Amino acid sequence: MKSVEEISDLVSRAIESLNWDREPAGLYAPIAYTLSLGGKRIRPALTLMACNLYTDELENALKPALGIEIFHNFTLLHDDIMDRAALRRGKPTVHLKWNDNTAILSGDVMQIAAYQLMTAAPAPVLKPVLELFSRTAVEICEGQQYDMEFENREVVSAGEYIEMIRLKTAVLLGCALKTGAVIGGADDEDAQNLYAFGENIGLAFQLMDDILDVYGDEKTFGKKIGGDILCNKKTYLLIHALQKAEGAIAEQLDALLKGEAGTPEVKIEKVTAIYTTLGVKQIAEDAMNAYYHTALEALAKVKVSDHRKSVLLQLAKNLMNRKE
Amino acid sequence: MKSVEEISDLVSRAIESLNWDREPAGLYAPIAYTLSLGGKRIRPALTLMACNLYTDELENALKPALGIEIFHNFTLLHDDIMDRAALRRGKPTVHLKWNDNTAILSGDVMQIAAYQLMTAAPAPVLKPVLELFSRTAVEICEGQQYDMEFENREVVSAGEYIEMIRLKTAVLLGCALKTGAVIGGADDEDAQNLYAFGENIGLAFQLMDDILDVYGDEKTFGKKIGGDILCNKKTYLLIHALQKAEGAIAEQLDALLKGEAGTPEVKIEKVTAIYTTLGVKQIAEDAMNAYYHTALEALAKVKVSDHRKSVLLQLAKNLMNRKE
Repeated sequence: MKSVEEISDLVSRAIESLNWDREPAGLYAPIAYTLSLGGKRIRPALTLMACNLYTDELENALKPALGIEIFHNFTLLHDDIMDRAALRRGKPTVHLKWNDNTAILSGDVMQIAAYQLMTAAPAPVLKPVLELFSRTAVEICEGQQYDMEFENREVVSAGEYIEMIRLKTAVLLGCALKTGAVIGGADDEDAQNLYAFGENIGLAFQLMDDILDVYGDEKTFGKKIGGDILCNKKTYLLIHALQKAEGAIAEQLDALLKGEAGTPEVKIEKVTAIYTTLGVKQIAEDAMNAYYHTALEALAKVKVSDHRKSVLLQLAKNLMNRKE
Repeated sequence: MKSVEEISDLVSRAIESLNWDREPAGLYAPIAYTLSLGGKRIRPALTLMACNLYTDELENALKPALGIEIFHNFTLLHDDIMDRAALRRGKPTVHLKWNDNTAILSGDVMQIAAYQLMTAAPAPVLKPVLELFSRTAVEICEGQQYDMEFENREVVSAGEYIEMIRLKTAVLLGCALKTGAVIGGADDEDAQNLYAFGENIGLAFQLMDDILDVYGDEKTFGKKIGGDILCNKKTYLLIHALQKAEGAIAEQLDALLKGEAGTPEVKIEKVTAIYTTLGVKQIAEDAMNAYYHTALEALAKVKVSDHRKSVLLQLAKNLMNRKE
């Protein structure tokens, strides 16, 4: 049984071993660049850990694990074009370092490369693994579409927001776990519980990200605090604030969103104060905790020893900055 | 055994039966639109015809045939963004009718949808079918990359041009045929000969397209004559003309390419005259005929009765506007 660190090493080495030194270099260099930017590599780790619940032979799951990571990086590459993002992990995005066309076409090749790696799944489980992967891939695109549509919508409900982040973020964690489980030989019930574990951890993680963007510590969060507030992003917090605000507070929030607040610092400070007054921080934390506990319950149902499951539990706690 | 017309009907009905009436409509409506624009549907027809060489049971090949057609339409959608094309089959392109982001994301979903249809291939041949499909998909992206790079290059050799059109166009015809053959139960030798038949027909067809753009009849060609000349496209004809032109003709051609010729009509007329003088029309026709005959030789080697092969032969003749 491998530790979190051993799995992480295995993933890193496997990603580094992929060869993008091919022609035409104009197509492959952006892929090598994208994958060199790093990231936590959570998804392939989840695939290998789920497989490791059932077998010490992880070789069969390695390429599909990489396929999921490359697909994830493909979505970031294309999302960055659509969002006109300038930076990814602190480095220039592909569409700025090269151009839009390169980012589109290199992304397309990454999507195919992801399928090539998924196709290395063992023959007896190839069809279900691919069906799950494709269904998940479509859902992620649907999530990105809703995310873009919500930017131009006046009102987004909390339920719509949760469904959007479920599609855009959570389902791939579920897919990563279920893929590893199926390759490792899990029965349907376990595979489904591991999917639910990943999906709910994904929802909890995204809500934590929304909360930390407002209440986090810049040093540990890794991004500027208040970024979501400055761009009026309809996060779980803003959606609830808009719903709960009345009278003078509603007017003040409206004015802040319209940019009638002076400096960015003042806007962040005042919106944060409104969130705290309205209790939306607590609402978001309650929702996050509920998803986290649903995730742990799903993991608890998996018919494998607690010792085997400890690695996944450890990763979940690390992700959520928790001790328990 | 089905006729060209019966295969064509089967393909049309199958494409119409695909349901894109899903949410979010902003993601799926552009896919329905793209597929409603029509086209000759050559690729899925080739898949079914190749399968039909070996069996009258075409059901197993139908979804993969559609997968290849949807992949083809996905590449057109993304290529249109990269080429800033305004029209596709006489209608506004998706990135103009909607916007770039919609065209990127709907294209991404089409690529996944193509894989979902390919994944319906029968289990015993699923892995080889997917491996061929993914390899071909990567090659098509490489062809598009070379095509874009060649626009900004001073000199492109005839060999480089042939390799570019092989990747961008020909390999998908080969893949379509080989996929149908493998699903139908062909042995490796037949499958490979059918691939070669498709690849060489593809090369011949693209060269014919280059020739017809200059020497064709607007009524039957379906596009404006001289389009390639007006945008200085480095076609097989222009590449050879640049190579063969000397002295005054070289200077005249250079001036024409720099736009120093007056009206578009004059440019088309004078470049065409240079092509004829230099004999590049003949060079292109010789190359086209050579690929066409290589294609027929590959088909001749397929170990199936001439009667069974007559449908593929008919389609090849129709494509190339030939009686023999």
